[in-house]
Amino acid sequence: MGYIHQAQYYETDQMGIIHHSNYIRWMEEARIAYMDEMAFPYKAVEEAGIISPVLSVQCDYKSMTHFGDRVAIEVKLTSYNGLKYTISYVMRDEKTGEVRAEGTSGHCYLNKDGRPVSVKKVLPDLHEKMMAMLEDKA
Amino acid sequence: MGYIHQAQYYETDQMGIIHHSNYIRWMEEARIAYMDEMAFPYKAVEEAGIISPVLSVQCDYKSMTHFGDRVAIEVKLTSYNGLKYTISYVMRDEKTGEVRAEGTSGHCYLNKDGRPVSVKKVLPDLHEKMMAMLEDKA
Amino acid sequence: MGYIHQAQYYETDQMGIIHHSNYIRWMEEARIAYMDEMAFPYKAVEEAGIISPVLSVQCDYKSMTHFGDRVAIEVKLTSYNGLKYTISYVMRDEKTGEVRAEGTSGHCYLNKDGRPVSVKKVLPDLHEKMMAMLEDKA
Amino acid sequence: MGYIHQAQYYETDQMGIIHHSNYIRWMEEARIAYMDEMAFPYKAVEEAGIISPVLSVQCDYKSMTHFGDRVAIEVKLTSYNGLKYTISYVMRDEKTGEVRAEGTSGHCYLNKDGRPVSVKKVLPDLHEKMMAMLEDKA
Repeated sequence: MGYIHQAQYYETDQMGIIHHSNYIRWMEEARIAYMDEMAFPYKAVEEAGIISPVLSVQCDYKSMTHFGDRVAIEVKLTSYNGLKYTISYVMRDEKTGEVRAEGTSGHCYLNKDGRPVSVKKVLPDLHEKMMAMLEDKA
Repeated sequence: MGYIHQAQYYETDQMGIIHHSNYIRWMEEARIAYMDEMAFPYKAVEEAGIISPVLSVQCDYKSMTHFGDRVAIEVKLTSYNGLKYTISYVMRDEKTGEVRAEGTSGHCYLNKDGRPVSVKKVLPDLHEKMMAMLEDKA
Repeated sequence: MGYIHQAQYYETDQMGIIHHSNYIRWMEEARIAYMDEMAFPYKAVEEAGIISPVLSVQCDYKSMTHFGDRVAIEVKLTSYNGLKYTISYVMRDEKTGEVRAEGTSGHCYLNKDGRPVSVKKVLPDLHEKMMAMLEDKA
Repeated sequence: MGYIHQAQYYETDQMGIIHHSNYIRWMEEARIAYMDEMAFPYKAVEEAGIISPVLSVQCDYKSMTHFGDRVAIEVKLTSYNGLKYTISYVMRDEKTGEVRAEGTSGHCYLNKDGRPVSVKKVLPDLHEKMMAMLEDKA
């Protein structure tokens, strides 16, 4: 369950597997689809003059993904304090359920001048949705 | 001769060669280095509120590039009329001189509203440099 | 109609649009999906010890694609002579139908030693399917 | 100091900065250049029938890199036990020395069947060089 990414030929490398850097991009795909689902698309964040850069990423590769494989990515908001948030990802082969990789990413919210913003103030609707998501996981 | 790109591991695919889409990116690298050399860096174009999008690309692949190979890219301005321009590229193995690929790209200049601009008017210095480059080739 | 690619954030560039090199990758995605549909997946080609490298690509950019846009890609086999083939692509905004780009790519079939192979001999089933596709378009 | 990567236009995203996934690729570039320097190129590893996949990556983004910036990447072997190794990276703006990002990556050595190999046995020359590098850091 979760977001599906089908591994592309241009994502392979000469080891005959998907190059590890692509999983970082898949995490972004899944994160954005997750925000779309919770009815606060990232496009709307940027249109409000807010950006949400990546502060950190981390990924553990557990098994290899091959060209054509479909990878199911489960996304969870694991922390959020009004300024920063952390998301975790479990990537599994869709058919077998075997874990391909586990990752996390950390983010903040900045205005156009690069200053941290309080989501509660500038995007109260987003703030409430994130608080609700966080409680869901509890 | 020309701009050098060293082929990276993450650019390979499972055929064991450099994936063809990367040559389109190398053409951009070489084009930007070429503009830097002629003392009108692309950064300065964008800082003047002008963008120069790609209208077309074309590439013929002649032989395969492998991980670690150094590719020398020769760049030429082949046409320029004050509004649009065309650039051609010959990519060769640095060591053997064997042609890897030949390409062209077409471009225009737009202002922030997406309207074509006359380079002669908005960036006369760039216009003169491009005219001079064009004559060089004649 | 056709293969759908949703434009990703990591495919944007600082012009605020999808970087032109990605369309070359989307052409590959759509081409491979097309082969899957005609019941001769590219994976099966490679498993038979045959590769099908790209000999040329060409793309005309007609309008800009933005982050989150869904692009519908129509694929057609436009020539095939048993050794080489050409594919054409029309990429449209899924919602408005506006053409984003039009491209073509040329390909051949090689064995593991890099020698051209006659598809009719080595993969007669694929040969028949390609001949049938070609007639479909007539 | 260290390996230099010049940030490319195709590496930017619509925030107007280098997309975070590229730093993971730069780490690979710098790692491979580092192995070249210590006179055991990665190409030679693969030619010996050994691959060295990535087990994990981690990156903390400290400040933003822009198009055209030159990033100096310092690489260190931080652990090696004959089977696995860890590398750390500090990425700095070449001009100002400001830290852009800090990362680590973990790796192992596998044979073509995907089984862990003892580097000491299969590539004793590489083993000695890695042991020497590790001591250098002590």
